Amino acid sequence: MPLMPIPAFLLATAPGGENIPLMMLIVFGSAKLLGELAHRLGMPPIVGGIIAGIALGPSALGWVPRSDILVFLADLGVMFLLFQVGLEVRSSELLKVGPVASLVAILGVVVPFATGWLIFFLWGFPMLENFFVGAAMVATSIGITAQVLAAKGLLDHVASRIILAAAVIDDVLGLIVLALVSSMAKGAVNFLELGLTAAIAIGFTIVVAKWGARTMVRLVPRVESRLVGEGQFTLAMVLLFALALLAQYAGVAAIIGAFLAGMALSESTTHRVHDFAAGISELLTPFFLVGIGLSLDLQVFSSRDTLILSLLVLVGAVLSKLIGCGLGAWKLGYGDAFRIGVGMVPRGEVGLVVAQIGASLGVIEQSVYGVVVFMALATTIVAPPLLNLAYKGVTPGTPIPEPRIG
Amino acid sequence: MPLMPIPAFLLATAPGGENIPLMMLIVFGSAKLLGELAHRLGMPPIVGGIIAGIALGPSALGWVPRSDILVFLADLGVMFLLFQVGLEVRSSELLKVGPVASLVAILGVVVPFATGWLIFFLWGFPMLENFFVGAAMVATSIGITAQVLAAKGLLDHVASRIILAAAVIDDVLGLIVLALVSSMAKGAVNFLELGLTAAIAIGFTIVVAKWGARTMVRLVPRVESRLVGEGQFTLAMVLLFALALLAQYAGVAAIIGAFLAGMALSESTTHRVHDFAAGISELLTPFFLVGIGLSLDLQVFSSRDTLILSLLVLVGAVLSKLIGCGLGAWKLGYGDAFRIGVGMVPRGEVGLVVAQIGASLGVIEQSVYGVVVFMALATTIVAPPLLNLAYKGVTPGTPIPEPRIG
Repeated sequence: MPLMPIPAFLLATAPGGENIPLMMLIVFGSAKLLGELAHRLGMPPIVGGIIAGIALGPSALGWVPRSDILVFLADLGVMFLLFQVGLEVRSSELLKVGPVASLVAILGVVVPFATGWLIFFLWGFPMLENFFVGAAMVATSIGITAQVLAAKGLLDHVASRIILAAAVIDDVLGLIVLALVSSMAKGAVNFLELGLTAAIAIGFTIVVAKWGARTMVRLVPRVESRLVGEGQFTLAMVLLFALALLAQYAGVAAIIGAFLAGMALSESTTHRVHDFAAGISELLTPFFLVGIGLSLDLQVFSSRDTLILSLLVLVGAVLSKLIGCGLGAWKLGYGDAFRIGVGMVPRGEVGLVVAQIGASLGVIEQSVYGVVVFMALATTIVAPPLLNLAYKGVTPGTPIPEPRIG
Repeated sequence: MPLMPIPAFLLATAPGGENIPLMMLIVFGSAKLLGELAHRLGMPPIVGGIIAGIALGPSALGWVPRSDILVFLADLGVMFLLFQVGLEVRSSELLKVGPVASLVAILGVVVPFATGWLIFFLWGFPMLENFFVGAAMVATSIGITAQVLAAKGLLDHVASRIILAAAVIDDVLGLIVLALVSSMAKGAVNFLELGLTAAIAIGFTIVVAKWGARTMVRLVPRVESRLVGEGQFTLAMVLLFALALLAQYAGVAAIIGAFLAGMALSESTTHRVHDFAAGISELLTPFFLVGIGLSLDLQVFSSRDTLILSLLVLVGAVLSKLIGCGLGAWKLGYGDAFRIGVGMVPRGEVGLVVAQIGASLGVIEQSVYGVVVFMALATTIVAPPLLNLAYKGVTPGTPIPEPRIG
């Protein structure tokens, strides 16, 4: 039950149309307003955006439904966010941090998986459910971290680079873990199929990361000059949607494809494409944030047992990524290890997807589903203030030196 | 029946999500591809975008449904298009051409209304239906013309200014005509209510056009500096959605509100807001164009009578705007009168809305609905090449002198 229904006269629409301006105004305006408020209270503005979503959602005001259009804008928004982050990153810099990032990603998968599994095992849940909760603890949602670091101008920092590279690797590992537990739930693990899934995902990512930028440096100037209008932007959009689509076919998230598209274009596009993409991100990011908040259902706290389990899982989710990823980056020193660990904490929509699949396979029961959704969102809300803390005193403009890679 | 179903493997989606990248890629990519082709054949690129919509739609390939999300993107796209056009226009320049534009708008309403009424009267349709078809012939859809003129850099031209001002006035007049025929269809004309509707619409438009820019020049610098992040863009978006919403409440189209919002900000925003809005427009305009093409149903040509009526209505729709608006601008000379007449030809989505209301009131029968939809779209497809012709030899960069208005 919404606390306060939206006044009916506000919903009056123009003949024949839905009320687009009203929805845009409420979502965009409230995310920005609470973002401003959060900023003045010393928190990152995006926390305000997520809280706006909780306030507008079913747990509070009930003004905005999680409609198809809102989910669409949220998904498109996070794609553009990652595309824009990709534009700031040269693949050579990402490949340079590859070894450390791999260790961070692997330990950042193993430790959270074991933690989730252990909590549910000790609580007495069935075996398959324990595996699924473990899998939901694995996936890192890079959107929020990327937004915080981009807003601070700190994407150049070595810890930020490692977070980005580790998030890409983590997504591939998460896919493999999800495929593994899904086939366990279906009764039989087909290792050949599993190997093929992994090979396609890894192959796609490596090929685009390694040769994408080189190809675009040659292709963009040639094609662009022959197109009418904003040729470079047209090319960029086609590459963005095409790689997001291919990423889906390869089994990884569309946003990984969007990130790789941005990175492939980072050495060949002008300021204008950056500004255009920034405009689209600025418009859509509030919908991404509100969308996260809208999926939170505070009903999960109706029983004391579920409440305790939820908090236990939240603490486990935060600590396991901090410890796992931190250990992987230990040789960089305490500061960077902490930054990297914190940056990998948010589970966001990737955790939600795992929970949905578990529920659709009948492996995850309703109350556990609520707990996993809470964990996915709470880690996302907790991360920005922790990132603020971790990057305190770090100033923009100290990029890592350009490597020489043939 | 679609000619060629989309291959099923292409529709495979990521777990838990709709296939956003596929839809974006098909719509954006094909609009740009056919736009490129149109350009090389000497036609305006947007004709290619509309043809892409016809090709993807139910009359041909059937690959893309006119889904809620596509309609949403199209509506949002035309809002940003008009917002962006508004950013290029100073209200003082628009008010300066007010007298001529008023005459253009009034004759551009009277002549098409009479023409539509006459064709249907002579063909032997019932009286109320004749009035509704007349009303559908009245409304000018400024989106396409604005896009063509903006792409040519000719928004500064005096004929372009008059077209924009006349389109705003025309929208208010169209509202009054629609209210009149709607109340006739409902049985009784309430002149008090009609007068109130007209007064609110006219009042809203004049107040925002006259005092919007002045208010924003004072407000923007003060508020902007206190906001975190892209404060000026945030303000611009809130004003855009708020005025689009208020325009709807006042009875005029949301895009008129969007245009007024852009115009109110034209004297107070930086290049950055322009670039951000341009990026959003560049992304969304293909969806607007494809959306127009998608609504065309070639079934309308299944009977010879309907075909003849359709062509007759199309010719009447083009000539009546050319003659009506041209007469209104006659004192500017033949060239500008022709430019203005052509610029007011497209009926687009506004004509569609009138047809929908007529159908929902049971006044417009199915075959006539098809004819009106055809007229609305065909005028939109015909206008860009005519505009190319009308503005041939006119070069950008000869703005009308800045007036002194207290």
